Amino acid sequence: MNPFGDPEKPQGSFIAVPVSIHFGDTDPYGVVYFASYFRYCHQGIEALFERLGLPPHLYFRNSERGFGLPIVGASCDFYRPVKYGDKLTLKVCVKHLKAKSVTFGFFFYKENSEDLVAKGEATIVAIDRNWKSCALPDDVRSALEKFAGDLN
Amino acid sequence: MNPFGDPEKPQGSFIAVPVSIHFGDTDPYGVVYFASYFRYCHQGIEALFERLGLPPHLYFRNSERGFGLPIVGASCDFYRPVKYGDKLTLKVCVKHLKAKSVTFGFFFYKENSEDLVAKGEATIVAIDRNWKSCALPDDVRSALEKFAGDLN
Amino acid sequence: MNPFGDPEKPQGSFIAVPVSIHFGDTDPYGVVYFASYFRYCHQGIEALFERLGLPPHLYFRNSERGFGLPIVGASCDFYRPVKYGDKLTLKVCVKHLKAKSVTFGFFFYKENSEDLVAKGEATIVAIDRNWKSCALPDDVRSALEKFAGDLN
Amino acid sequence: MNPFGDPEKPQGSFIAVPVSIHFGDTDPYGVVYFASYFRYCHQGIEALFERLGLPPHLYFRNSERGFGLPIVGASCDFYRPVKYGDKLTLKVCVKHLKAKSVTFGFFFYKENSEDLVAKGEATIVAIDRNWKSCALPDDVRSALEKFAGDLN
Repeated sequence: MNPFGDPEKPQGSFIAVPVSIHFGDTDPYGVVYFASYFRYCHQGIEALFERLGLPPHLYFRNSERGFGLPIVGASCDFYRPVKYGDKLTLKVCVKHLKAKSVTFGFFFYKENSEDLVAKGEATIVAIDRNWKSCALPDDVRSALEKFAGDLN
Repeated sequence: MNPFGDPEKPQGSFIAVPVSIHFGDTDPYGVVYFASYFRYCHQGIEALFERLGLPPHLYFRNSERGFGLPIVGASCDFYRPVKYGDKLTLKVCVKHLKAKSVTFGFFFYKENSEDLVAKGEATIVAIDRNWKSCALPDDVRSALEKFAGDLN
Repeated sequence: MNPFGDPEKPQGSFIAVPVSIHFGDTDPYGVVYFASYFRYCHQGIEALFERLGLPPHLYFRNSERGFGLPIVGASCDFYRPVKYGDKLTLKVCVKHLKAKSVTFGFFFYKENSEDLVAKGEATIVAIDRNWKSCALPDDVRSALEKFAGDLN
Repeated sequence: MNPFGDPEKPQGSFIAVPVSIHFGDTDPYGVVYFASYFRYCHQGIEALFERLGLPPHLYFRNSERGFGLPIVGASCDFYRPVKYGDKLTLKVCVKHLKAKSVTFGFFFYKENSEDLVAKGEATIVAIDRNWKSCALPDDVRSALEKFAGDLN
């Protein structure tokens, strides 16, 4: 038994988002192109924000409130080829929640299976009007804390 | 002889832009996806603006000067399949230059050939701060006039 | 009363598809970029095929059955700016159904409104193994006929 | 002095590739979207392959020779915002060359500066017809070895 949890699965709370594969998402051989997964990851963050009552267009950048939430790092590993015609389920969880940043975890499965095809993470940092890092806005922080439960 | 010119070729002045086909530009069968051509068309407009001394980022939208140049219509016909590994040359010309709008013509050829693979057009309209159509900015108009020659 | 129908609305049967606007779909000013609409149109065709029981990955190209359904022409007009954060509904209908081709109509509305923001069309032609045009496969034709009703 | 080299710069041989930022590459706020960098990375690999005399369309997948070179992992860190209108230079190097895989390093700079805006890497594995990992094709290996010099 792994005391750190199963690395194949999200720890704690997660949302499951269906991912549709479209023309333009694949390489010329019909296999989903690695860069597309990062777009899917972003769509996963958008879906999580929606679920938390944080409309993405008011949170990724909010000039009135004077903050932004840019992504400062991302990585993904790709385990199996996924083809046009396949359907995926993306599970999004909160891996690390810190004062100024949050790291999301992404787990891609073939639909209706536990077949992990890719796994990644991305870190968002809160910035102020001068692109200096700052504390996460309170409402973002509390929504993420509530979602992540006792994970962090 | 066609008094209206050869519909297979740009009329008057044009610039020739190399088009690279990348992963993500094709359908799952390795053929350039129709929507990608519209991205190439936009890259053609950007290249033309650059050539005319109009830096795209200062012209597609200029909040200080209070104008924008959104695309209000576009069309393209696709004659032959183009595959990843092919190289294209895009010729961009000015088809119609009016007080408030300009229509660009796009001709896509296999590199170093007269093999027309796709042909399209797109129309840009000048708008003011309220998204009302207005006269093209003088510098845009004069650069396009000079480029288009006696075509219009 | 317009005997040809309201050009602002799809004629006959249509499906309504929600369109999500994602990062990468907009121009640098936050307005949906014209080329993105053509991707949405393709997603609309995919959704229609799904609805008709024609899995897209078995129909856009089918090497076993020896046919393909490439897009040979597309156009779109853009009436109003759509921003990141807006939600759209895309209505897809069959405009013309011919022996060897089908033209789809696309109507983009702000969600829950009759505010038409863009309107386009795209034509698919059936091709055989040699990229020669041929009759639409029978199952495609009959599914589209049934969907389109007495329109054509 | 850092015995491991300057982490801000490619070690050993590299190629420098100009990166153009286009509509569709940015977030709605005009800043290059993190997923776009991964597309640029792939363009960097394509450029390197071209430079090495390995035409990308014959090497990422080659059904006749029975191999493929899919990307199995990628990561990138983003240090500064890059806007539409900025120009970038991407330096691509070989970080690790192993029997069955190669890891490329990517360094993004503002054009004509040493201002590092993003840094990433991506690993390609050679696979056979059954998607099992296998030795890199000899010509790929020798071209990369020659390019990378005595680095590995």
